Amino acid sequence: MSLRTLFAGDLHVVNVGLESFAQPLRDSGVDVTSIDWRPPAHGDDELGLDLARLVGHPLVEASNAVAMDRILAVQPLWVDVCPAREAIPALAERRLLLHAGPPIAWAEMCGPMRAAVVGAALLEGWASTPAEAERQAASGGIEFEPCHHHDAVGPMAGIISPSMPLIVVEDPATGRRSYSNLNEGQGRCLRYGALGDDVMDRLRWMSARLGPSLRAALRSLPERVNLRSLTAQALQMGDECHSRNVASSALLVRELAGALAQHPDLGGHEALEFLRGNNYWFLNFSMAASKLATMAGHGVEHSTVVTAFARNGVEVGVRVSGCGDSWFTAPAADVEGLYFPGFGPEDANPDIGDSAIAEVHGLGGFALAAAPAIVGFIGGTPSAARRISEEMATITVTRHRDYQLPGLDFVGAPVGIDVRAVVDTGTEPTITTGISHREPGIGQIGAGITHAPLECFIKALRAFPALPVEP
Amino acid sequence: MSLRTLFAGDLHVVNVGLESFAQPLRDSGVDVTSIDWRPPAHGDDELGLDLARLVGHPLVEASNAVAMDRILAVQPLWVDVCPAREAIPALAERRLLLHAGPPIAWAEMCGPMRAAVVGAALLEGWASTPAEAERQAASGGIEFEPCHHHDAVGPMAGIISPSMPLIVVEDPATGRRSYSNLNEGQGRCLRYGALGDDVMDRLRWMSARLGPSLRAALRSLPERVNLRSLTAQALQMGDECHSRNVASSALLVRELAGALAQHPDLGGHEALEFLRGNNYWFLNFSMAASKLATMAGHGVEHSTVVTAFARNGVEVGVRVSGCGDSWFTAPAADVEGLYFPGFGPEDANPDIGDSAIAEVHGLGGFALAAAPAIVGFIGGTPSAARRISEEMATITVTRHRDYQLPGLDFVGAPVGIDVRAVVDTGTEPTITTGISHREPGIGQIGAGITHAPLECFIKALRAFPALPVEP
Repeated sequence: MSLRTLFAGDLHVVNVGLESFAQPLRDSGVDVTSIDWRPPAHGDDELGLDLARLVGHPLVEASNAVAMDRILAVQPLWVDVCPAREAIPALAERRLLLHAGPPIAWAEMCGPMRAAVVGAALLEGWASTPAEAERQAASGGIEFEPCHHHDAVGPMAGIISPSMPLIVVEDPATGRRSYSNLNEGQGRCLRYGALGDDVMDRLRWMSARLGPSLRAALRSLPERVNLRSLTAQALQMGDECHSRNVASSALLVRELAGALAQHPDLGGHEALEFLRGNNYWFLNFSMAASKLATMAGHGVEHSTVVTAFARNGVEVGVRVSGCGDSWFTAPAADVEGLYFPGFGPEDANPDIGDSAIAEVHGLGGFALAAAPAIVGFIGGTPSAARRISEEMATITVTRHRDYQLPGLDFVGAPVGIDVRAVVDTGTEPTITTGISHREPGIGQIGAGITHAPLECFIKALRAFPALPVEP
Repeated sequence: MSLRTLFAGDLHVVNVGLESFAQPLRDSGVDVTSIDWRPPAHGDDELGLDLARLVGHPLVEASNAVAMDRILAVQPLWVDVCPAREAIPALAERRLLLHAGPPIAWAEMCGPMRAAVVGAALLEGWASTPAEAERQAASGGIEFEPCHHHDAVGPMAGIISPSMPLIVVEDPATGRRSYSNLNEGQGRCLRYGALGDDVMDRLRWMSARLGPSLRAALRSLPERVNLRSLTAQALQMGDECHSRNVASSALLVRELAGALAQHPDLGGHEALEFLRGNNYWFLNFSMAASKLATMAGHGVEHSTVVTAFARNGVEVGVRVSGCGDSWFTAPAADVEGLYFPGFGPEDANPDIGDSAIAEVHGLGGFALAAAPAIVGFIGGTPSAARRISEEMATITVTRHRDYQLPGLDFVGAPVGIDVRAVVDTGTEPTITTGISHREPGIGQIGAGITHAPLECFIKALRAFPALPVEP
């Protein structure tokens, strides 16, 4: 068709990519359909070639299917509560604290994590003043390792010390176990970097009374609590099991109440009072269950499935099934959110915590369509929440069989973040999260939405082990 | 325009009313827009005139606003649990049983209600065999009155006898109280007309242990439980608080658990075990709270707002704010629903119970958009549930301020059924409900959807007291 013929009739234009090319046509009254397209891999040639080698490759597809089968087969049963030193031997052998996110040294830690380290050192009796605790931490007197390196996860600062009671979750088919600490509630909590007598008293009570009473109650239940089925129920009840845990927490308390009532000597009645007001109680269970599932999919050769995403408040990092135990890191992102009165974005610590393991497992931001009550995080409309869940489905391998989203006609939650899809589309995983004050000692100041930075996924893709030459 | 001109151009037809008029045009390729319209008042001239006198009348509009203000101002606080004879004096003074729905004599009662009467007579020790109980009932040895005549409501057969523990709900602003019995759980229950040692043992335990332990627990709570705020929360968590009560039940148990744990002597620990598995626990609280609210709107002169709808299994009846204490009745409708294995529609008793007070208060079918988990009742899609909530808004006066529907972008639940709108549109209120076997002694066989028959509303409209002649 000659240009002359082209312009003789009515023009209907499809504009691919840069929206600014469409505007002059629109201004001249032309009917333009815009397609939001960006070159794969940010237009980076070398990265584009790395990506092209992996996209659609049968070995990768098959390996991802294996990884997802393993992840989705896990039945996370809550089997015990015990002091961390019993569950994780390294905590009994060394003066060690576990923390959220990829590895980080004391000197690099953000304010809330430092505060939580100080609190844990005081709790363990390693130091009698905050200054002494800081000196120990600075001089190498305390070692630090990620929770993830010990099959554990902790929200926000994620500090786990030897005496803290841990949730123990087990997959009966493999005997594999994962761990998380117990949730302190909202507001002034160690995990948000709050310090003070209130925080320390609660932690001591949790070790002395809450943990033992839960352990005893759990043992007297007729059967173990299946956290997968509890999560599936809660998704029908407005939870996304990361930043909204009201239904799951209430269901779990109802399950335990009769058994806790039997153990007043161990603290069961105090536990019931404590649980009455804790709407975040299930978060740590959701995290431990998500860790158990995703770790089952780790270590599958040639799999591009993400098996962990975690943040230490300074850096964030992903681990990928086929990339061994490396963390691929980027600077921690900011959180957009709703702040408690008197606080604002300038007070916020960047993204922190292991809780994004929920998103790696199809919950949190990926299941946002299930949780209309927290759509205030994202502008207030359930339709925006549904869009986010649908967008996340463009970067995942499959959908969860049991985790259904009622807001999207019961479709399964998107699960199994594929490094290839993130790099190809440039779509960063959406994460719902709490917000910590950046200064040590203050605590939670809000909650909102953040994203896993593309940079981590690009690094992982670049480092992805070469595929064998086809036979 | 002449006919010739009309047919010369493209035809675009709007068809109002009978859809069959549109089809021949469509068949000829004409573009037809159908408007689903029916003549008001079923095309009945006299009824149409009655309706015309009320529609848009300023006195009716003002009176309905007053009724709704009173209904929506009620704060239903759960203040006590006590034996029915303490709450309702008539039960202490006479050999009286309360039942669901409008008035009915023993000889007319359906199978499940007769069975529940027998169970109650055995429970009270009035008879020692079912045959003896039936003889007493038939000979006038037992009196029967509607729960509604004593500010009470009972689900399904709704039998309340003197020793049964009642929920007491109070509006602090007026001191007015309403009552409901305690929920027995699902399956083989007296309210569904099941009989047997299991049913009787549970009822005796409820009187001896559950009621007293709840009473003691409630008294030791730091503050009374506001059932309105609990309902509002539960609507964000997948309950419509008639046929789905999982979230509200779990939240209420979490609230009470610590206090129940303190009273092992009174049965508090057994209560917690019982409550662990009772997903209908909150239904009777929802009903009592709805009764308290709707009765506040009753007795407003010139108001066409429905203040009760109840079913005795043979007849259903409505009460209207401006129509005094009359019941306007019609034969009980069938229930379309999901049946337990081995049962079907031929086994079902027609619609029964006071639980539709929930719909009168904007819950149940009116709030169906909030409860995707029970959309199986209506074909399985959340969009159908949303449509029903929207349709109910066409027959109500206003929307509830606190009862928000997340599936409809947090719009308030439609509340305040207007007799005029039901008759005008022919839209029957949608009700979610359980299904009882029609034979005495068997129990629940399913759950589903039914409608409040138009006939009741037509009778109420016809009987509506004349409005004063305008000055």
